[in-house]
Amino acid sequence: MDFAPSERTHALTERLARFMRDEVIPAEPVYAAQLVGGADHRQWRQPPVMEQLKARARDAGLWNLFLPGLDGGPGLSNVEYASLAELMGHSFIAPEAFNCNAPDTGNMEVLHRYGSEEQKRQWLEPLLRGEIRSGFAMTEPDVASSDATNMRATATVEGDEIVLNGRKWWTTGLGHPHCRFVIFMGLSDAQAEPHRRHSMVVCPLDAAGVQIERMLPVFHDYDEPSGHGELHFANVRLPLSHVILGAGRGFEIAQGRLGPGRVHHCMRAIGTAERALSLLCKRAQSRVAFGQPLLKLGGNADIIANLRMAIEQARLLTLKTAWTLDTRGSKAALSLISQIKVVVPMVAQQAADAAIQIHGGAGLTDDFPLAQLYAYARVLRLADGPDEVHRAVVAKLEAKAQLAVENRA
Amino acid sequence: MDFAPSERTHALTERLARFMRDEVIPAEPVYAAQLVGGADHRQWRQPPVMEQLKARARDAGLWNLFLPGLDGGPGLSNVEYASLAELMGHSFIAPEAFNCNAPDTGNMEVLHRYGSEEQKRQWLEPLLRGEIRSGFAMTEPDVASSDATNMRATATVEGDEIVLNGRKWWTTGLGHPHCRFVIFMGLSDAQAEPHRRHSMVVCPLDAAGVQIERMLPVFHDYDEPSGHGELHFANVRLPLSHVILGAGRGFEIAQGRLGPGRVHHCMRAIGTAERALSLLCKRAQSRVAFGQPLLKLGGNADIIANLRMAIEQARLLTLKTAWTLDTRGSKAALSLISQIKVVVPMVAQQAADAAIQIHGGAGLTDDFPLAQLYAYARVLRLADGPDEVHRAVVAKLEAKAQLAVENRA
Amino acid sequence: MDFAPSERTHALTERLARFMRDEVIPAEPVYAAQLVGGADHRQWRQPPVMEQLKARARDAGLWNLFLPGLDGGPGLSNVEYASLAELMGHSFIAPEAFNCNAPDTGNMEVLHRYGSEEQKRQWLEPLLRGEIRSGFAMTEPDVASSDATNMRATATVEGDEIVLNGRKWWTTGLGHPHCRFVIFMGLSDAQAEPHRRHSMVVCPLDAAGVQIERMLPVFHDYDEPSGHGELHFANVRLPLSHVILGAGRGFEIAQGRLGPGRVHHCMRAIGTAERALSLLCKRAQSRVAFGQPLLKLGGNADIIANLRMAIEQARLLTLKTAWTLDTRGSKAALSLISQIKVVVPMVAQQAADAAIQIHGGAGLTDDFPLAQLYAYARVLRLADGPDEVHRAVVAKLEAKAQLAVENRA
Amino acid sequence: MDFAPSERTHALTERLARFMRDEVIPAEPVYAAQLVGGADHRQWRQPPVMEQLKARARDAGLWNLFLPGLDGGPGLSNVEYASLAELMGHSFIAPEAFNCNAPDTGNMEVLHRYGSEEQKRQWLEPLLRGEIRSGFAMTEPDVASSDATNMRATATVEGDEIVLNGRKWWTTGLGHPHCRFVIFMGLSDAQAEPHRRHSMVVCPLDAAGVQIERMLPVFHDYDEPSGHGELHFANVRLPLSHVILGAGRGFEIAQGRLGPGRVHHCMRAIGTAERALSLLCKRAQSRVAFGQPLLKLGGNADIIANLRMAIEQARLLTLKTAWTLDTRGSKAALSLISQIKVVVPMVAQQAADAAIQIHGGAGLTDDFPLAQLYAYARVLRLADGPDEVHRAVVAKLEAKAQLAVENRA
Repeated sequence: MDFAPSERTHALTERLARFMRDEVIPAEPVYAAQLVGGADHRQWRQPPVMEQLKARARDAGLWNLFLPGLDGGPGLSNVEYASLAELMGHSFIAPEAFNCNAPDTGNMEVLHRYGSEEQKRQWLEPLLRGEIRSGFAMTEPDVASSDATNMRATATVEGDEIVLNGRKWWTTGLGHPHCRFVIFMGLSDAQAEPHRRHSMVVCPLDAAGVQIERMLPVFHDYDEPSGHGELHFANVRLPLSHVILGAGRGFEIAQGRLGPGRVHHCMRAIGTAERALSLLCKRAQSRVAFGQPLLKLGGNADIIANLRMAIEQARLLTLKTAWTLDTRGSKAALSLISQIKVVVPMVAQQAADAAIQIHGGAGLTDDFPLAQLYAYARVLRLADGPDEVHRAVVAKLEAKAQLAVENRA
Repeated sequence: MDFAPSERTHALTERLARFMRDEVIPAEPVYAAQLVGGADHRQWRQPPVMEQLKARARDAGLWNLFLPGLDGGPGLSNVEYASLAELMGHSFIAPEAFNCNAPDTGNMEVLHRYGSEEQKRQWLEPLLRGEIRSGFAMTEPDVASSDATNMRATATVEGDEIVLNGRKWWTTGLGHPHCRFVIFMGLSDAQAEPHRRHSMVVCPLDAAGVQIERMLPVFHDYDEPSGHGELHFANVRLPLSHVILGAGRGFEIAQGRLGPGRVHHCMRAIGTAERALSLLCKRAQSRVAFGQPLLKLGGNADIIANLRMAIEQARLLTLKTAWTLDTRGSKAALSLISQIKVVVPMVAQQAADAAIQIHGGAGLTDDFPLAQLYAYARVLRLADGPDEVHRAVVAKLEAKAQLAVENRA
Repeated sequence: MDFAPSERTHALTERLARFMRDEVIPAEPVYAAQLVGGADHRQWRQPPVMEQLKARARDAGLWNLFLPGLDGGPGLSNVEYASLAELMGHSFIAPEAFNCNAPDTGNMEVLHRYGSEEQKRQWLEPLLRGEIRSGFAMTEPDVASSDATNMRATATVEGDEIVLNGRKWWTTGLGHPHCRFVIFMGLSDAQAEPHRRHSMVVCPLDAAGVQIERMLPVFHDYDEPSGHGELHFANVRLPLSHVILGAGRGFEIAQGRLGPGRVHHCMRAIGTAERALSLLCKRAQSRVAFGQPLLKLGGNADIIANLRMAIEQARLLTLKTAWTLDTRGSKAALSLISQIKVVVPMVAQQAADAAIQIHGGAGLTDDFPLAQLYAYARVLRLADGPDEVHRAVVAKLEAKAQLAVENRA
Repeated sequence: MDFAPSERTHALTERLARFMRDEVIPAEPVYAAQLVGGADHRQWRQPPVMEQLKARARDAGLWNLFLPGLDGGPGLSNVEYASLAELMGHSFIAPEAFNCNAPDTGNMEVLHRYGSEEQKRQWLEPLLRGEIRSGFAMTEPDVASSDATNMRATATVEGDEIVLNGRKWWTTGLGHPHCRFVIFMGLSDAQAEPHRRHSMVVCPLDAAGVQIERMLPVFHDYDEPSGHGELHFANVRLPLSHVILGAGRGFEIAQGRLGPGRVHHCMRAIGTAERALSLLCKRAQSRVAFGQPLLKLGGNADIIANLRMAIEQARLLTLKTAWTLDTRGSKAALSLISQIKVVVPMVAQQAADAAIQIHGGAGLTDDFPLAQLYAYARVLRLADGPDEVHRAVVAKLEAKAQLAVENRA
């Protein structure tokens, strides 16, 4: 169980940290000033500073770091990528600058691993170059999507076409001016065995019958210019070549996609928690009340200690998950992936909440990135499966493992 | 310790509940549709439906219920007002409809108890009629305002004038189109004994030197058309008749103002928590996953039980505080007021967070009032003193009380 | 909802408090010195000082205060009894001194309400005089007794006899030298409707076939000379006159018995929590580290504040439960009784744990009553139904109530 | 950061696990039956089965595994020892069977690293052979020992003698029939600089003036035949050769001693938590209520999941601490050592408490080892510094580190 960065990653980490400090962080206010906000995503624009950052990051060799080998990716292991992803988590604009933002990373992995040559050429290559962006359409508004068997949207094979119908939401990145397609998941054959029922389909946004209904705010924030969108599919007809891997193989792909995606999210959320703790400590040492820095008052030092311990533990658990994925595969990592999906967002939420509290009212405004850090952590307790579902997975696997030990003894 | 509603309040409660159900709740979407949102408060408008609600509430005798006697108020005790305020807490638009919204209620109480005849005529009367609105300018952006002695703004007597200087923020209601004045608190005499240093001054918003800098978002929400504002005072000169009660008597007034104000906030926050729990239960019983309503899954039933117990306890503690204020005065209620300021917003925050979680992504959007309920509870953990300061008060009084018992024994 | 003590209880409370301070507390070390400890209950003796306390308490009119009217009881309401029971909770030896100790109080109530004249004469009267003690045999070692339908012990009617068989444990008071009988609950008719299957039977300990197996330690403490015992019944034959109320009416009695019993336990546990908090505060103010009393260090003041808030809320919830029982009956109090069974023991456990922590190692020894307070609270989270069962009751009733509101709207 | 067991440790772990399963666990009831209990340690006897276990463990090469190199120890790193120590933590009798029990391990390390040849010959060698046992006398009953500067006991150099005076308690192992000496820490020179004031002295228990006052119960358990003792030193005169390393060098030694000692404690406590979780899962799957195994009821699965996540994280944090000690020394590990001292005992306490709850009343008795596991975890929140002191250390180092980062930026 070796979590130490390799020499190669050590050097990468240093370069990335320097890039973050010299390029990304100073660009944050520029980016904010260039944003066009509001609920109407058709007004959204890509801030020019982001394209500049992307160009520089690519020149600096800090591009597509997430990608496991080939196709221009450095082929980092999950453990190697971890410290890089954590650093990116310190700034909301960092992941896109490095072409490492969700959900595009997951989509690139899917196309990289399961896509046809045509799909790769048409969709993967421009994604890898950062020219276009994409979404993932799985969650549905009308059912409890925590139970995947609730899925109602359909992807029906009719001759040499596949026909998409249904409503999806929480498609992250849908509002981005560069967004060109989504990967759509739908029911193809309700009679097949449970894990062969669904398909994943590349659906261009300009296909007839695709309708973007609206963007969804998170605590009143639209997260422009990416956004989270609701979209409807009404008899969207696509050639069968748009199906990934083949009809009925959606769950197979999903299982491969979600593991690393969740780990990447958690790595970034560790960075989120660290940023919050760092702001908390700075405020605690600089603000004075009752003749003392806040740090010396009441239980504030305990809050800092508790967060340090919680973040440290969450990071180690995430590293162990990455290591297990790398060395033993995704089935062996099943419980651990669910564990970090519960632990890490909760720690990040607590860190952001505590940092808000010590900043007083200022913590709730846009004068600090805390409200945004908070919202990111809060969303993550729901995205890719709510805490409750992941706890149930952990408990089930634990009970089974304990029973096995008992029976062996 | 009698918490039961009097016959009179019982009848009032019934009428208010009916008005909430038949008038206020149905008006919520109308109000939302009539709102002009965004960061620029100069664009904000009073939704016409609010003026209609106000007219009907006044006709129905559900007006100024908060006001302790005289001047058109029903003279309800704090205990009597409690169940009414809780009901109002179910809807964000309810308090204004009944002319019972903060910070106007606190300002009306101050003017009612301490204002000169002229101040009453000019400011209190239109407030009581619901024609104008007002703000309270105490918290400052540059210091830890949890320690009141940090206050830097000044209110200097010069001849027959008082001159205001300094920066204030979190002045709730400042952005409202009807807002006409704020009560400003500033340092008048740094050499006086600690509780005689500050003054409260009625400052019209159109006085020369008053500058509204901006509105402050809470989790990206501007809470329009009321808002929380930052405003600067640069050599604002007012006649001495604008000082309330006399220069140097600001703390005296503050102590009288903050007690009931905090209790009212907590009463409404109980309503907030109840609304969240009610939405949670509804969702838990109507959504199905893995073949069962969510209520039957995992720890969801425990979450409901824990919230019920926490809310019930928080309500009883609030009622005891109200009863103590009513029967034994604000000094006797000191610890209890701080206790509810810690307990109630935390319960409301937990209820809103749990309700969001069970709603999945929908809970974070504007499709449900949960994000707004959450923000209200979150702000309340900072407004009128952060949790930390109130916990310190409770501990100090407890330690003192225990020492007294010990010494007596 | 009036929780104030009546004039009569006010006077009683003062007398009881004085008796606690002048008689009970000073007797604690004498009692401890007179105890014969160890696992073998046959060695246990009633400390003579207890009989002296009982005599004085009876002379002082502080006797059988729990008893609702008649038979020498003062007929206090549950609300009236609450503050008395809380005071008794400050010392482990107090309840017996006032003849108000569990499970005898519950048994006296059962016999008082449901017993035949003969049962009253033979068992209730000596209990009321404090001459004998008794136990309650319901929980069983071989099944999850949280589910009452699991009960395996049988009480079979054969002609004019009832025959008891089975194993019971956690019969509190079984080891007491004065213990003469238990009330046994067993299955009489597995085919009857669910609430008519069980019977309660007065079973003398000297009946043939009754075997005391052992005393059960709680964290290594046998709670001598009362103890919690395991006992077996092998074909114990008793005349039908030993059945209370009639065969098949056990659940009916249990429901009446458990409500007030749980409330009494919770009232005493509030006293337990207060005693722990009082010891905590005393230590925090008298011990010095790093140049300051512990009270001033780290989060200690927050711990005190949090406990004060939690205890205050738990007490109010208990009073509301008592008031509801008094005024609206036990069915209306169902959820509240379950609520306090979850809330109060947990608060008492937290208070005792925090007090232990601040006492350092000393808190774990017998130099302070904290380990004993802790154990009492810990047991109470299991006795009369574990937390989990009560949470489930609260959630079920809440969901039902919310559904009713919704359907009405 | 490589936590993987070396090949050597892998083999050792397998052998140790087998020995635990085949020898230690089956010996537990034999050991319990051979114990002589009670408060009077002069009655305590070493259970013969323990000497048999020791002989077999030594023959199996599972002896002194804790010892870092030389002197018959295998020279395992802290990381290598970690999984072995965790396994030992599953049974209370295991550590002594492998000669790896506290406080002897710490004392052996002190003598190994700092002892004179004479001290090694006379005290270390018989300890290494498991012939004698020892104690550590640092904590004092009359002061808050969490602040080491409070220490009142003295070790005064007078000519060629050192004279010990004062009261000590919580000397673990003092009651063991084989206990021959304690390492005593006392003030030698109040005027010296703070870290040169104290001395450590080997004090034989049969020295004139040494008085064992009593054994201290933990939740009524005396932990016989080791125990925790209180002892008084009245003008105990010893030759200067009994001083370790030299007068005034006590803190220097303490710092070296406490680091690994705390890590070992935490490793064993992880084992404690795992044992509790394992018993919990077993009960949850085998007991049935309301027609289901307890595992399926209410929040029980969540409890299991939460414990699995907490234990996993605590283990990783402990491994990181061990790895840091191994590779970067004890100063670099300062914060981490304090972190695990807070985190691990708390997790173990929670695991034991949750396991007790699911066992119902049985969990509180001696029918299961849960009450003992609980007590071990509870003591550990106080031993070697209470949580509060360690949290303060973590916060202080964190604030300092954050300030350094900020200044660098």
